[in-house]
Amino acid sequence: MYFRKVTILGVGLIGASLALALKKYKLAETIIGYGRTEAHLVVAQERSIIDAFERDPARACDGADLIVFSTPVGIFLDLAKRISDCVREGALVTDVGSVKGELVREMERVLAPKGRFVGGHPIAGSDRSGIWTASADLFVHARCIVTPTPLTDKGALEQIAEMWRAVGSAVELLDPDEHDRIYAAVSHLLHVLVYELVNTVAEINDSYLAYSGQGFKDTTRIAASHPELWRDICLSNRDNIVMFLDRFQKNLDVVKEYLTTRDGKSLLARFEQARKLRERIGRDRNS
Amino acid sequence: MYFRKVTILGVGLIGASLALALKKYKLAETIIGYGRTEAHLVVAQERSIIDAFERDPARACDGADLIVFSTPVGIFLDLAKRISDCVREGALVTDVGSVKGELVREMERVLAPKGRFVGGHPIAGSDRSGIWTASADLFVHARCIVTPTPLTDKGALEQIAEMWRAVGSAVELLDPDEHDRIYAAVSHLLHVLVYELVNTVAEINDSYLAYSGQGFKDTTRIAASHPELWRDICLSNRDNIVMFLDRFQKNLDVVKEYLTTRDGKSLLARFEQARKLRERIGRDRNS
Repeated sequence: MYFRKVTILGVGLIGASLALALKKYKLAETIIGYGRTEAHLVVAQERSIIDAFERDPARACDGADLIVFSTPVGIFLDLAKRISDCVREGALVTDVGSVKGELVREMERVLAPKGRFVGGHPIAGSDRSGIWTASADLFVHARCIVTPTPLTDKGALEQIAEMWRAVGSAVELLDPDEHDRIYAAVSHLLHVLVYELVNTVAEINDSYLAYSGQGFKDTTRIAASHPELWRDICLSNRDNIVMFLDRFQKNLDVVKEYLTTRDGKSLLARFEQARKLRERIGRDRNS
Repeated sequence: MYFRKVTILGVGLIGASLALALKKYKLAETIIGYGRTEAHLVVAQERSIIDAFERDPARACDGADLIVFSTPVGIFLDLAKRISDCVREGALVTDVGSVKGELVREMERVLAPKGRFVGGHPIAGSDRSGIWTASADLFVHARCIVTPTPLTDKGALEQIAEMWRAVGSAVELLDPDEHDRIYAAVSHLLHVLVYELVNTVAEINDSYLAYSGQGFKDTTRIAASHPELWRDICLSNRDNIVMFLDRFQKNLDVVKEYLTTRDGKSLLARFEQARKLRERIGRDRNS
């Protein structure tokens, strides 16, 4: 596997890390970056993350044999429309967005005439963002979800999976809609909760945040995540997120009932169940 | 400052760590442990965390010049009643519970005839529990809240503050009710949310938890906290917690509204506000 020209649309943490990894594992000859902020592109070029950059996405993609969408998901479709005429016949197109589902089907539709689109979602990055924390090893031992549809080109699917394996990831195939339900539950939901937990505490009393201990800091670390990125993700996956927020609020109602009626036995049962479930997923890197 | 006999009621992470710290800084001659599980007390004695143990709390406290309540808060009052006759005249009595408020006033009332009670809450421990993770250095650079009331003996208050400083903590005085509002917001509330987040995800689909990444693991680490301890804390501070849960749910309603109406601008404003607030409290030890 070797790409003569790779275009990275959005040179943030994930895009820049993938560029570094493609170079490190000798999978790409030339890497072109596109982004909205010229200063970031200049830094990326100075650091040899990309070989050159273009301020026009269509020109950036011209002749590329691999195109990677790594901007916030909210501008994917607009970008896809802007580049679709310039995509080389048979080019491989993928993305690293946290939302798949409908977005994958629309990307497919817009890009299908020439490019072969395969949706992807590397599970890496956490609360960090920007090229300053980029690393060629970001994807090593990470999981990468790839989301084929009935229309996906089998050869393209195999190449994208192969690329992620080549940079160190374990590839897992998922239906795009199932992906969105899963990540609404284990990722998008909790980002909303944590952002709102911080807002709620500040609303109760702005000075209380100064009393936060390690538990609060650990729990709210992801509130440092990129707000624009998360606005886009939440809007794209809004139906699942709203449904799960409803469910979560109903569970909070149950807890409030137990607290109000001083039902310690039922409260303990819920806490014990949560502890057992949490223990099943293992301790994290820092424990 | 030197205690001839110290009694630790409840030899868990905090009780055992305090025992180790009192020995390390040569603040205590003999340390007696009391607890409900004999096997734990045997281990604590074998590891020289305590010098001896008693299975009867009154006997454990007999003649002690310092008594520390470090069991789950739910049994504080029952224990206080059982030891009150045996407390030496003028003995110093304190606790390490995460709830103060009404509990401090009741402890004061029960123990006042002989002992001088001062409520305390060292901010240490996080999701860990049990003597296996105890450390003499647990309180170094930690904050310790001490909660005097109008009835608190001034000399006793100074001695308890002095003890916490001697084991490395920064002491801060707070009104017991204000303590409970603050810690309902920055600690108790989030324990409930995290326990219920884990329960909700499992309820949506039991298999989804296997997809949790670093963000979910960090956010839910505190779900590993001791369920009994947290049942007691939540019940004791239930009015504040229920009030703050109401407020949190109202904020979730606002977010659901923004999602449903696709109001990306308002959503972004909330996420940006949360990010700014979170950045103010600093990065954690692992970043």
